[in-house]
Amino acid sequence: MSTVSPPTDPESDPRIKAVFDDIRTTRQTDTINALWHYLAFDTAVLEETWRDVKGLMATETTLDFKTKEMLYIAVSISNNCDYCVHSHTAAARARGMTDAEHGELLRIVALASKTNALANAIKPPVDAVFDKERTA
Amino acid sequence: MSTVSPPTDPESDPRIKAVFDDIRTTRQTDTINALWHYLAFDTAVLEETWRDVKGLMATETTLDFKTKEMLYIAVSISNNCDYCVHSHTAAARARGMTDAEHGELLRIVALASKTNALANAIKPPVDAVFDKERTA
Amino acid sequence: MSTVSPPTDPESDPRIKAVFDDIRTTRQTDTINALWHYLAFDTAVLEETWRDVKGLMATETTLDFKTKEMLYIAVSISNNCDYCVHSHTAAARARGMTDAEHGELLRIVALASKTNALANAIKPPVDAVFDKERTA
Amino acid sequence: MSTVSPPTDPESDPRIKAVFDDIRTTRQTDTINALWHYLAFDTAVLEETWRDVKGLMATETTLDFKTKEMLYIAVSISNNCDYCVHSHTAAARARGMTDAEHGELLRIVALASKTNALANAIKPPVDAVFDKERTA
Amino acid sequence: MSTVSPPTDPESDPRIKAVFDDIRTTRQTDTINALWHYLAFDTAVLEETWRDVKGLMATETTLDFKTKEMLYIAVSISNNCDYCVHSHTAAARARGMTDAEHGELLRIVALASKTNALANAIKPPVDAVFDKERTA
Amino acid sequence: MSTVSPPTDPESDPRIKAVFDDIRTTRQTDTINALWHYLAFDTAVLEETWRDVKGLMATETTLDFKTKEMLYIAVSISNNCDYCVHSHTAAARARGMTDAEHGELLRIVALASKTNALANAIKPPVDAVFDKERTA
Repeated sequence: MSTVSPPTDPESDPRIKAVFDDIRTTRQTDTINALWHYLAFDTAVLEETWRDVKGLMATETTLDFKTKEMLYIAVSISNNCDYCVHSHTAAARARGMTDAEHGELLRIVALASKTNALANAIKPPVDAVFDKERTA
Repeated sequence: MSTVSPPTDPESDPRIKAVFDDIRTTRQTDTINALWHYLAFDTAVLEETWRDVKGLMATETTLDFKTKEMLYIAVSISNNCDYCVHSHTAAARARGMTDAEHGELLRIVALASKTNALANAIKPPVDAVFDKERTA
Repeated sequence: MSTVSPPTDPESDPRIKAVFDDIRTTRQTDTINALWHYLAFDTAVLEETWRDVKGLMATETTLDFKTKEMLYIAVSISNNCDYCVHSHTAAARARGMTDAEHGELLRIVALASKTNALANAIKPPVDAVFDKERTA
Repeated sequence: MSTVSPPTDPESDPRIKAVFDDIRTTRQTDTINALWHYLAFDTAVLEETWRDVKGLMATETTLDFKTKEMLYIAVSISNNCDYCVHSHTAAARARGMTDAEHGELLRIVALASKTNALANAIKPPVDAVFDKERTA
Repeated sequence: MSTVSPPTDPESDPRIKAVFDDIRTTRQTDTINALWHYLAFDTAVLEETWRDVKGLMATETTLDFKTKEMLYIAVSISNNCDYCVHSHTAAARARGMTDAEHGELLRIVALASKTNALANAIKPPVDAVFDKERTA
Repeated sequence: MSTVSPPTDPESDPRIKAVFDDIRTTRQTDTINALWHYLAFDTAVLEETWRDVKGLMATETTLDFKTKEMLYIAVSISNNCDYCVHSHTAAARARGMTDAEHGELLRIVALASKTNALANAIKPPVDAVFDKERTA
């Protein structure tokens, strides 16, 4: 059950069709995942979101595609986004993430969540040596 | 201001000394960061936390050290752990993270936080194609 | 699947009946949503929650009803409360929220989540000009 | 203490200068808040963030400016972004938010946080009547 | 730096004075902590918050005072509320929490944060045996 | 729908069998809950998680078993871990948590979530009297 309704005939709207066409071309697939259908309830949201995702996750940048998807998963777990954990886990696998890497990613997320809780509970002073401005 | 007091003479306790010695040896430094001094308020917490951090973050595993630290930063930002963001940003730089990689990491955390919010707001159905059990 | 059981015959308890009657009168409806049935597992929780919700969300106050529901949605998305996002999206629509306003609300939640993550990652110093006590 | 260093002479970079000039023009002020100085550590992050903030928060859209800033505050409190709570509280005041409205905003954030916790603890079934797709 | 200004002469307002008097009587102290001074920026917020805190945390109920404060700390760490972690850690100590209990509390918060992250990452099906409604 | 696949014949792996045997012995039950089946996708994650859970939650320590489970629930609600709220609510009941105690636990989580939001919104200065280091 969703909080918005996807348009029943999305590609009759040329702005939506342009985004969907670009998704198909960029990803070399005929499948438009559910998120994009639902984001199309508001054309501006659809266009902006796809522009951002395409520019960072579907474009050659400094980090490799697999690392970028693994970072995306780490954030999505921490924010507890059900849809995003599923979609980016699938994407990371498509970018070459092995089961061993996936297991290690989850171990890091688990350990960081643990030490984050400890540090937020204790609130130790931040060491001056960590300061970028001092060390730069 | 912290919620626990670090021991005034921590290394007079042989269990604390053993952990601090191992930190110095493993990290090849004389510095024991504040977190470890404060965790020493409870020896069991100190021992367990160092065992976990050493086993994953200071040991050769599947993922390289820099990627592991960047994943740790991504989680720490999402959990808003002030100390951890600082300490693991410093650690990632020590492992070779460049300013360009740092900038890209922050762009991914920012974008994921945005689409996490959108997906959690809309709650689209999760596409069957993402299912590991189906696709395995 | 829920973690508590709603009473099987809630209105046989006069305190529960009083709350349910007040919900029906205040909202001018015969429907008691599931949340209230489940909160009735503990009469004190039910009474307090309804008292708070009625006093703020079902009473004329400074902000108009639609704005109050939209603020409620923004918090509920950020806290990732599935039930609350659904119930308050329905309530906001009943108070007059249009699809365009809903789309814009989601854009704001998405943008704020993005810049929240950036600021929490970077931790810039807070500008003195923002200080209420200085500017008051 | 921040995790990145702002450029020492930011406006010597024409891309940064263009953003800073646009901030000054759009906001009709000479002040560039700290966030923008720090975001300038990575030009792409700076440009994207300003483009998004300007397009939604500094542009006439469906919702009025004050309501948009109040929604931004609600999200920023829930995500516990120190900088953002301060900057958008100042912005909302500049857009006309009164102390009474501010107090009411905080009451809504507090109440929503409470009922979000209760609903996430109990997990009642979501009422079919909330379903946009059924009711549309 | 705070987002609201506490009243300069709070007890000149009889509603604020009534709350402050009740805090002093209930807690048997002359000290009014900063939170209450700042909440007094909006009398309704002050009254409601004190009524709720007094009714649950300063009143004999089913759970003992120390356990209630420790539960409060656990939530406050998870929500990363700096002020609340400090104030309720002090309160728990005043209610008899020992250093060993504090250490164990932090170990539980740390472990739960870790397994919460793992379960949210993996999303295993919830076992039917956990269902209150089946087992009741 | 889960993001990893549990092994189809887990106990053919002697490391997994050792953990499952220990779970059955420690908990005096034949049932291995779903979480453990899914964690077995990565043997190291399974072993570490069970070691940690057994050492703290299934071992006599300073706090009693019921209190430990209630603290675990409080964190799991705040982190919105669906599986964990269910499993630890069942565990707390098995350790003797009554319906009245469960109701009171939820009232504390709800109240803390509310005051956490208020304090994070207002950011009052932390009273010096809360300082462990001063008062120790």
